[in-house]
Amino acid sequence: MTKDRLYLYDTTLRDGQQTQGVQFSTSDKQQIAAALDRLGVDYIEGGWPGANPTDSAFFEAAPSTRATLTAFGMTKRAGRSAENDDVLAAVLNAGTPAVCLVGKSNLFHVTEALGITAEENLENIRASIAHLVAQGREALFDAEHFFDGYLVDPGYARACLEAAQEAGARWMVLCDTNGGTMPGQIGRIVSDLIAAGLDGARLGIHTHNDTEQAVAGSLAAVEAGARQVQGTLNGLGERCGNANLTALIPTLKLKAPYADTLDIGVSDDALEGLTRVSRMLDDILNRVPMKQSAYVGSSAFAHKAGLHASAILKNPATYEHVDPARVGNSRIIPMSNQAGQSNLRKRLAEAGLEVEAGDPALARILDRVKDREAEGYSYDTAQASFELLARDELGRMPDLFEVKRYRVSVERRKNKYDRMVSLSEAVVVVKVDGEKKLSVSESMDETGSDRGPVNALSKALAKDLGRYQDAIDDMRLVDFKVRITQGGTEAVTRVIIDSEDGQGKRWSTVGVSPNIVDASFEALLDAVRWKIIRDEVPS
Amino acid sequence: MTKDRLYLYDTTLRDGQQTQGVQFSTSDKQQIAAALDRLGVDYIEGGWPGANPTDSAFFEAAPSTRATLTAFGMTKRAGRSAENDDVLAAVLNAGTPAVCLVGKSNLFHVTEALGITAEENLENIRASIAHLVAQGREALFDAEHFFDGYLVDPGYARACLEAAQEAGARWMVLCDTNGGTMPGQIGRIVSDLIAAGLDGARLGIHTHNDTEQAVAGSLAAVEAGARQVQGTLNGLGERCGNANLTALIPTLKLKAPYADTLDIGVSDDALEGLTRVSRMLDDILNRVPMKQSAYVGSSAFAHKAGLHASAILKNPATYEHVDPARVGNSRIIPMSNQAGQSNLRKRLAEAGLEVEAGDPALARILDRVKDREAEGYSYDTAQASFELLARDELGRMPDLFEVKRYRVSVERRKNKYDRMVSLSEAVVVVKVDGEKKLSVSESMDETGSDRGPVNALSKALAKDLGRYQDAIDDMRLVDFKVRITQGGTEAVTRVIIDSEDGQGKRWSTVGVSPNIVDASFEALLDAVRWKIIRDEVPS
Repeated sequence: MTKDRLYLYDTTLRDGQQTQGVQFSTSDKQQIAAALDRLGVDYIEGGWPGANPTDSAFFEAAPSTRATLTAFGMTKRAGRSAENDDVLAAVLNAGTPAVCLVGKSNLFHVTEALGITAEENLENIRASIAHLVAQGREALFDAEHFFDGYLVDPGYARACLEAAQEAGARWMVLCDTNGGTMPGQIGRIVSDLIAAGLDGARLGIHTHNDTEQAVAGSLAAVEAGARQVQGTLNGLGERCGNANLTALIPTLKLKAPYADTLDIGVSDDALEGLTRVSRMLDDILNRVPMKQSAYVGSSAFAHKAGLHASAILKNPATYEHVDPARVGNSRIIPMSNQAGQSNLRKRLAEAGLEVEAGDPALARILDRVKDREAEGYSYDTAQASFELLARDELGRMPDLFEVKRYRVSVERRKNKYDRMVSLSEAVVVVKVDGEKKLSVSESMDETGSDRGPVNALSKALAKDLGRYQDAIDDMRLVDFKVRITQGGTEAVTRVIIDSEDGQGKRWSTVGVSPNIVDASFEALLDAVRWKIIRDEVPS
Repeated sequence: MTKDRLYLYDTTLRDGQQTQGVQFSTSDKQQIAAALDRLGVDYIEGGWPGANPTDSAFFEAAPSTRATLTAFGMTKRAGRSAENDDVLAAVLNAGTPAVCLVGKSNLFHVTEALGITAEENLENIRASIAHLVAQGREALFDAEHFFDGYLVDPGYARACLEAAQEAGARWMVLCDTNGGTMPGQIGRIVSDLIAAGLDGARLGIHTHNDTEQAVAGSLAAVEAGARQVQGTLNGLGERCGNANLTALIPTLKLKAPYADTLDIGVSDDALEGLTRVSRMLDDILNRVPMKQSAYVGSSAFAHKAGLHASAILKNPATYEHVDPARVGNSRIIPMSNQAGQSNLRKRLAEAGLEVEAGDPALARILDRVKDREAEGYSYDTAQASFELLARDELGRMPDLFEVKRYRVSVERRKNKYDRMVSLSEAVVVVKVDGEKKLSVSESMDETGSDRGPVNALSKALAKDLGRYQDAIDDMRLVDFKVRITQGGTEAVTRVIIDSEDGQGKRWSTVGVSPNIVDASFEALLDAVRWKIIRDEVPS
């Protein structure tokens, strides 16, 4: 049987930016676009050119992608031609191969929100789409409020789609803008449209999660014959979010009836990167990843119930609907010390620490990780700090140097030009090979800008470590993430620091304290200790 | 038309406890049971008596509820009678009016996990349910892995339900234990069962969220004729969670076709308490509430897109599928660079700043918000900082005081007991009414713990502000959020601070700088200025 092609349209960079609290920078957008392209979506909607500086900057330096880069805008306004609409012109000026224009398809909105006639709105759709096509662009029409509009006046809602179809739109996208339509209703309406002569191969679906059914609504439209699905990574989006592509993609790839009847552009290999893509987006947004997310959450394959855990050990299919490895996730069996220890040995071996099965230190390491995670630490990314903890329990942590004390100050005052300026200064006192060393540094970078107290501390700590100086001279701090988290009953600060050496190798460390400077210093110290051990200590 | 009664069965206290990281105390369980009872669910599953000390303690001091309190357990094991099964006896000893027993209905599991014959399993179901009925209990049979089992052997899966039905079970509950069944499939199977002679009025549905479709799967079963829905508050539960009652209840109460054809036990009044119940559960679990949750999330009715926000002001139905007040939630129109002038005027009016339409300051405010967001600021939540920015552009920002300079130090060294301890000290110099004031504070809290440099700065800034002292004496810092973001081309730190006054009123402010202490100080300063203006400046 030949399979139908189903197209994936990502709107993380446009509708995803409507999430409360989300404000992508241009470089965030570039990173996300690259990840989406590797994943294999067909369209990347980059934003609305002209609507805000970030979106305009993104299109000005548009990335080169295999996916079709798409600009978003709206149909021309009434009372002017498509050629003379400056908002539409800004969208076209972005020069993308595809353009998606939102327009009304609900008669209530045409009269209530726009205050124009039914025919004027149809003409706006027709003329705008025809203008895109005349410019050689692939044209998409987002039919806003389509399903609500279909209930108000099905003939008019359909006429809006037909106007776009006849003007040459490649896709007519049915939007459940307010997110309140039930999946069953979506399926019935899509079937009716196709029965009435619209081409299912040109229909798309765009849902929102206001009743927690955006994924189901999208799949209902696909089952009824729509062949484009719009959504966002991690379900970002206005209000409750858009249809979550991170949940939709594995279902389409792995599960009946979709996997048997439809092809999507995501390869098996790319699917195995899905969990990483999801976590990367959370990192960019500095959000705590949702543990319970379908497929990619850290709890998605965690088997806590005792009955489940013991059956899983016999046969994973007893309590798993798919193999976690297919989406790059992994199984967690908190009940089973056995599974924990074999994973741990594997992780230690990767760090060059071979440990015999059954070594009692393994249980001690697991306990200590558990205790520290209860205090607010996290070792998911801070692999270097984890290695130091393990070395300590294994008795393989060499004495390197001791920090006797440190002091850092931040001062803000007027300079001689009467401008407020800040400066930080740090003093670190260490003892290396019996010798006490005082180092002082300030936070000014080469351009004369203040980089703050953590920068000053980092420089002072790395200034003079005696015979270890060679090992640390080529390391630098490349990223610094801060999160407020719970340590027991108190809110504490968790700092994760990424460091890099001269060869571009990166490692991550973690520190936790109610005092943000202390937490940062702990992570800095781990970063330095890890680097010295790697370079200087014979394994 | 008479409506069918649909029963709600809550399993927050049992399946919800399988959530990774969730461990209810007995008193947590009592609080949650009381809230569920007020909400109007029909059944409260309290736990598994005998399985762990918390569950046993909960049933020993069982709360008196209008809802039917239910104990959970499993069908008797093979090779002994129901009367002589000690696990079953412990469940019955809890003395609840209803008992729900889980048993196998998937032939693969009968042989693979239990290692017994098909007929032995049927006999276990029959004998266990008959035993409950003989003891005068309302009996429920949870058919584990029902949908997967139906695909393996539909006749056998149905025979398990029939065994329970014939033995007198009030409910046969169809469990999608692994969470992988599509809603369409669930609907078709429920229809087939009813066509084959099972009584829909005795069928329940229990789904999991492993494909993000638990709510849709439950509703598909209800549409096909099942009359009991099982779920949890906030979608707690094993792996990705159970069907989320917090999303299901409003859909059943407010939306077609359910609201027109079915009655549930939740009153209109109780529904208005739903958002509070959801937040209360997060409080008990010490979790940050999910902003994007359907109906009850703080973003569920937040309109960030400029086009949406302006239409909402004309008529809320344009972009809302239900009225937020029905579920005790409220509408938010956040300030961000997506917003337009009408949205802005409304936001200003709420802050007591009436501005004429067309005032040129409106465009200046929008431009400044845009510029600042490009530098890394965010005004979605930091409403108080936004108000100060607007006052400045409107020429309505009074001169309050001037910060001349500040200095803060963090020192870590050994104390006299040879333990490493930290202490921060801050000096802030302000000029109020022509008078220069120096204030110094340190970071120790009442318990002697160091709370870090931002705490010390906050105390020093609020120590002596002359005639404004009264206004700020009752304010305190309640939350502190940090993220690294992009300000132009450089990474900068964005700090958002939440402050609270003596009446519990909260406000949020933002600061941005490459130096985390500077960013924090800027947000602190805005917090103090906003409070003084609110209390002291005649509007």
